[in-house]
Amino acid sequence: MTFSRVDVAQVILGDCEYCPVDTFEAWSPVNIALCKYWGKRNGVLNLPVNDSLSVALPGKGTHTRVTRLQVGAKDIVFLNDRPVHEADSFYKKVVAHLDLFRLGRSDRFRVDTVNTIATAAGLASSASGFSALTRAVAGVQGFSLDDGALSILARLGSGSACRSIFEGFVRWHKGEAVDGMDSCAAPLSQVWPGLRLGVLTLTGSAKKVGSREGMARTVESTPLYSAWPVQAEADIAILEEAIAARDFEQLGATAEHNALTMHATMIASWPPLLYWEPESVAVMQKVWQMREDGVPVYLTMDAGPNVKLLFEAQVEGSIRQAFPDVEVVKLFP
Amino acid sequence: MTFSRVDVAQVILGDCEYCPVDTFEAWSPVNIALCKYWGKRNGVLNLPVNDSLSVALPGKGTHTRVTRLQVGAKDIVFLNDRPVHEADSFYKKVVAHLDLFRLGRSDRFRVDTVNTIATAAGLASSASGFSALTRAVAGVQGFSLDDGALSILARLGSGSACRSIFEGFVRWHKGEAVDGMDSCAAPLSQVWPGLRLGVLTLTGSAKKVGSREGMARTVESTPLYSAWPVQAEADIAILEEAIAARDFEQLGATAEHNALTMHATMIASWPPLLYWEPESVAVMQKVWQMREDGVPVYLTMDAGPNVKLLFEAQVEGSIRQAFPDVEVVKLFP
Repeated sequence: MTFSRVDVAQVILGDCEYCPVDTFEAWSPVNIALCKYWGKRNGVLNLPVNDSLSVALPGKGTHTRVTRLQVGAKDIVFLNDRPVHEADSFYKKVVAHLDLFRLGRSDRFRVDTVNTIATAAGLASSASGFSALTRAVAGVQGFSLDDGALSILARLGSGSACRSIFEGFVRWHKGEAVDGMDSCAAPLSQVWPGLRLGVLTLTGSAKKVGSREGMARTVESTPLYSAWPVQAEADIAILEEAIAARDFEQLGATAEHNALTMHATMIASWPPLLYWEPESVAVMQKVWQMREDGVPVYLTMDAGPNVKLLFEAQVEGSIRQAFPDVEVVKLFP
Repeated sequence: MTFSRVDVAQVILGDCEYCPVDTFEAWSPVNIALCKYWGKRNGVLNLPVNDSLSVALPGKGTHTRVTRLQVGAKDIVFLNDRPVHEADSFYKKVVAHLDLFRLGRSDRFRVDTVNTIATAAGLASSASGFSALTRAVAGVQGFSLDDGALSILARLGSGSACRSIFEGFVRWHKGEAVDGMDSCAAPLSQVWPGLRLGVLTLTGSAKKVGSREGMARTVESTPLYSAWPVQAEADIAILEEAIAARDFEQLGATAEHNALTMHATMIASWPPLLYWEPESVAVMQKVWQMREDGVPVYLTMDAGPNVKLLFEAQVEGSIRQAFPDVEVVKLFP
């Protein structure tokens, strides 16, 4: 039996009381995975092959306001204060997500979504975007939902959006159910006030192959992918240990190894998927040189050319000296 | 039961008639693998995990002359007309290889070895070097050996040297025997007069981790390696098909996918093994752009930053235009 996204939304929302309001605002943070999500077992419901583990970026993310329009109007979407044309793929994705919350009613909405991060920074705004949209449209319909249900609904918009429902360290449990009712994120209890993320925005062209297509190509075209879920499973356990023990070297090394292993599966795909620019390699080499010189700094990368640095507060000075353009994010209060 | 290199040489050479001469010269070509050798099942005998397939570079390789010295002298080694100090690792490797051919006698030799390729070009001179040394020292001892036996003896010096015993397309059969008596190379019968290799020598630092250590690290530290022998096995079959059918696209695509998959296993190792320089990525991107623009050109890379191009004679003009510094090698007469 296969399920559509509308089927899943119906199961979650069908018994919710409909208490419509005029407008509702929500916020969700961007998240950076320390153990990556790479590969879907179900591309319609965005069900992953492996568990993933992320940390939210406080203050970096998406504000979304959903306002009720008159019945029969067309949905309207604004991104960063500019109207999005209905032929645009972003418009279509947003409207398809709104559809999940209409439940056959002819409710129409205006969506105002503002990212507090530069798109060029290569931080995944689709995660914070679909998380904030999920919270906002659920709010405008007056559906009373717990965070687990919101996480599942956010996942239907974009897989990693299920993690952006939460702050701090978050684990996305891949689940086993064919309808994905057990595939949602949950926060870890630990905080790590000294942990820092450094964002380096490289010059370079926009990626040619999106994550959705990239994942599908990897799963289909390289035998190396078969080992990925095994490593991800092992990495998550080590990361949780590292977080519990506040062991930075273990956290950093595991996150870097995990990210590079994901990129390895991409590079082994056919046609090859190389998200790196020449400058990415220069930054990687610089990070490794710093480690050789005794600075505990590790890197992670997503499906794009930018490098993110992981380090602790006490080496922030060295990091800023080596990378004058770095944007440093404090991950916990 | 484990075998030393001396054990293996004794088995091969023990029954050979000893007909010493004063001096013997030999030549062997460099080879470029289209399906790479990456990973040893036995590090002493250089027995590989997977079969590999290469093509020799005519005119690029190593000339070696071995001259008999008086009994009791010290071995002397000259590399490119310069004496090599006995504390140098190259001297030690050469002498250890000579040892295999002494069979307990106190023969001493002078070795003059000259590479006809710039070391900086990243072409594996250890393959042509140990192949030429094997031929030359076997010659100076007057041992009458067939090419299969020479291939096994060359392998004891450097794995891929077993392929440099032959010209043209060469397959190294990994074999199954614990003493490696069935692990040797053999030539393929086909020629491909239109096939070209373009060598691009990038600027950049010498590699920090040698192939021997790199292979060992990969085998030990990434779960992705488990899929490598499976893919290599499949790639060899496709390459042999492509060579038989003279199907360039199949040859090029398979060689590129194989090389990138090998690099993927390196990148997934821990600590990470990235042999690429920023410029390597720039060249890769340029090659992919040329393919998008309709030029059939593929790339391969070994454990270093340099990129080698595979193409056919009819696009040589486009290749030279795009890469003015390329050195084009005609692979067959």
